[in-house]
Amino acid sequence: MTKRILILPGDYIGPEIMAEAEKVLRRVNQQYDLELALEHGLIGGAALDVHGVPLPEETLAAARSADAILLGAVGGPKWDGVERELRPERGLLAIRSQLQLFGNLRPAILYPQLVEASSLKPEVVSGLDILIVRELTGGIYFGEPRGIRTLENGERQGYNTYVYSESEIERIAHLAFDLAGKRDGRVCSVDKSNVLEATVLWREVLERIAPQYPDVELSHMYVDNAAMQLVRAPKQFDVIVTGNMFGDILSDAAAMLTGSIGMLPSASLDREGRGMYEPCHGSAPDIAGGGKANPLATILSVAMMLRYTLAAPSAADAIEGAVSAVLDQGLRTADIHSEGTTLVDTVAMGDAVVAAL
Amino acid sequence: MTKRILILPGDYIGPEIMAEAEKVLRRVNQQYDLELALEHGLIGGAALDVHGVPLPEETLAAARSADAILLGAVGGPKWDGVERELRPERGLLAIRSQLQLFGNLRPAILYPQLVEASSLKPEVVSGLDILIVRELTGGIYFGEPRGIRTLENGERQGYNTYVYSESEIERIAHLAFDLAGKRDGRVCSVDKSNVLEATVLWREVLERIAPQYPDVELSHMYVDNAAMQLVRAPKQFDVIVTGNMFGDILSDAAAMLTGSIGMLPSASLDREGRGMYEPCHGSAPDIAGGGKANPLATILSVAMMLRYTLAAPSAADAIEGAVSAVLDQGLRTADIHSEGTTLVDTVAMGDAVVAAL
Ligand SMILES: CC(C)[C@H](C(=O)O)[C@@H](O)C(=O)O
Ligand SMILES: CC(C)[C@H](C(=O)O)[C@@H](O)C(=O)O
Repeated sequence: MTKRILILPGDYIGPEIMAEAEKVLRRVNQQYDLELALEHGLIGGAALDVHGVPLPEETLAAARSADAILLGAVGGPKWDGVERELRPERGLLAIRSQLQLFGNLRPAILYPQLVEASSLKPEVVSGLDILIVRELTGGIYFGEPRGIRTLENGERQGYNTYVYSESEIERIAHLAFDLAGKRDGRVCSVDKSNVLEATVLWREVLERIAPQYPDVELSHMYVDNAAMQLVRAPKQFDVIVTGNMFGDILSDAAAMLTGSIGMLPSASLDREGRGMYEPCHGSAPDIAGGGKANPLATILSVAMMLRYTLAAPSAADAIEGAVSAVLDQGLRTADIHSEGTTLVDTVAMGDAVVAAL
Repeated sequence: MTKRILILPGDYIGPEIMAEAEKVLRRVNQQYDLELALEHGLIGGAALDVHGVPLPEETLAAARSADAILLGAVGGPKWDGVERELRPERGLLAIRSQLQLFGNLRPAILYPQLVEASSLKPEVVSGLDILIVRELTGGIYFGEPRGIRTLENGERQGYNTYVYSESEIERIAHLAFDLAGKRDGRVCSVDKSNVLEATVLWREVLERIAPQYPDVELSHMYVDNAAMQLVRAPKQFDVIVTGNMFGDILSDAAAMLTGSIGMLPSASLDREGRGMYEPCHGSAPDIAGGGKANPLATILSVAMMLRYTLAAPSAADAIEGAVSAVLDQGLRTADIHSEGTTLVDTVAMGDAVVAAL
C-alpha cells in the first residue's frame, strides 16, 4: 500500500538540505520497495511569500492526509518585518499543534568520528547518547491567556500562561517510558516543582505512571540543575522528559554538547505514531545558497521517519550506516570540518551518502 | 556610622561556609575600620525548625533594617515532607520579593588556577568572565494566577503566569546597561520573543532604553540559542540580561562552565543598591558536616557586598586578592582538588584566606 510523504523544504538552507535528503529517500524507496509517494508543499517564509500565511490551508490539508512529513527549516531575516502572527515560525508552531504532534524526540548523539568537534573534553562527551523527549503542543507555548495589555496605571504588561493538564502529561510520560524501555531504562523528568505549580502536577503524574513500567527507573531533576549536569557530566542521562519550554532550551544545549548540531535529527509524533521529521538546526540564513549546509541531520531525519512512522527499520539502519560510512571516509561539510579531513559541499555530501547505500 | 550586616547561615553546609566568611568579614572590618555590626538570623529549614515558617517575621524585620544581608544556602531533604508553602526555598523567594531585590548579579568567572576543573576545553573557557543579570522578583516565579485546579471534565490542570510590566523590565535593563558600561560595554538580552508575548515586551523595552547608553552595545538572543552559545563559545558574552526563569537556567549553566561553582558569588540588589549576597551553589546536603564544603563562594560574596553595597572597594579587592593568593598556594577544597594541589577542609581554607589578608 502506497504511503504518502509530504516534503516541506522551508526557508534559506531548507531547500538545499532537503534536496539531498530527498535523493536518499528516493534511493531507499527503490532499494527496499517501500512504495512511498513523495509530495511537496510550502511552509514558513516560503509559504508567506506565495500565499500570505506561513501555514496555508492546502499545506495543512496535505499534512493531515500524509503518513509522514519531512521538514527542512523555517524562518530568517527576510521576514523580520512581518507582523508577529504571520512569522514563519508560526507556521511551524501551527502545524505541530494542528496535527497534535505532542512528542518531540531529540537525540543528542556524539559520532565517534566527530569527538573533536565538541567544545567539551573528549572524556566528558565520548559515547554520548541521550534522548530528550520534549512535550511539543502544550505548556507556555500555547497557554491562554497571552498577550500584551495596558494596566490601569498606563504601563503595559506582557503575559503568557504555563499550563499542563493531567492527560497532556500522561501521554508524554508514556512515550518517554516506552522509549526508555528500549534504551537504557532510565527516565529523568525535568521540572521546576520547587517554584512552579504547573510542574508540581507534572512530577506527580510522572510518579503515578512510573509503576506501569517496572523496568524503567524514574528520577527527577530541577531544570537549573539539569542545565548544569548537561555541562558537567552529560553521560549520566539516558532519556530526559520535560515540558515544551524547558525542552526547547535543554535540547539545544544537549545538541551543542556534540559540537555538531548539523548532524542531529528529530521526530515529532502524534498518538498514532504518525509524525513530522526535521533536523534540530535552523534555517541558517548566514550560509544559505553557498553549498555549505550539512545535509546529514535531514538525511538522518529520513532514517528516523523510516523507523518510527514507516516501520522500515532496515532502510533506517542502511541510511545510518551510510552516514557513518561517509564520516569514516573523512568527508565533512564546513560545520564539522577539521584538519586531516576532506571538505565537501552539501551536494557532494548527499551524493556520497547515496553512493554508500 | 555603623552599618548593620544580617547574617543568615541557612541549612546543611550553610553554617559551615558562613563561619569562614564571617571570619574574613570580621578581619576586613578591623583592618579597614568599616564599622560593621554583625547580626544573625534564621531562614529556610533552620527557621522552619524553630519558628514553623521559612521566613519568620523577626528575620524579615532584621533584613529590612540591615544595610546588607549575607546568606549561606537553604533547603534539603530534611524538609522534603513539609507542605509546599512552607518549604525552605519559600523563605528565599519571600525575602527576595519582600525586599524587592530585583537585580541578581551572577558572575561566571574562570580562575586561571582552576582551568582544568572545567568540563570544557581550556581554549573554550580560559579567561571566561561573564556577568549574568537575572531579574529576580518578577516573571513566572511570582506571577498570578497560579495553582492546580480541576477542570470540568474532572482532570486536573497546573498553571502559572509569566508576566512582566514595563517598569519591571526598565529597572533591570538600567542595571544591566550600567554594569556593562563598567565592563566590556556589551549587553546581550535573552528572550523567547518568537513565541512568548511577555518577552516581546521585554525586547521592546530593552530597545527603547538602549539609546540612553550610547557606549553600550545591545544585542538579542533567543534563550535556546543562548543555551547553545554558552556551551559552544561562552567568551562571546559580556553581560547577559534576562528574566527570572531563563536567568535561573542560564546562570547555572554558565556557572558550571567554570567547573567550580563552589567559587562563584552572587548579589541581589534593590533600587537603592542595598542587597543580599550569597554563593551560587546550594546547601549541598550530601557533603554537609564533613568539612568538605568550599567557603570561597561565600567569601567572595562578602567581597561583592563590600563593593556593591558598602562602598568599600579596597576591602573587596583585598579579599579577592587573598582568594587568588590561596589558590596560588595550591590550596584546594575537595570540589576543586586535582593532582599536584593540596587538599584542605572548609576551616583550613577560611583560615588561609584570613592569613593572606
Ligand atoms: C522556531 C521556534 C519557534 C522553535 C521552538 O521554540 O520550538 C525552535 O526553537 C525549535 O526548537 O524547534
Ligand atoms: C532554590 C530556588 C528557589 C532558587 C531559584 O530558582 O531561584 C535557586 O535555584 C536559585 O537560583 O537561587
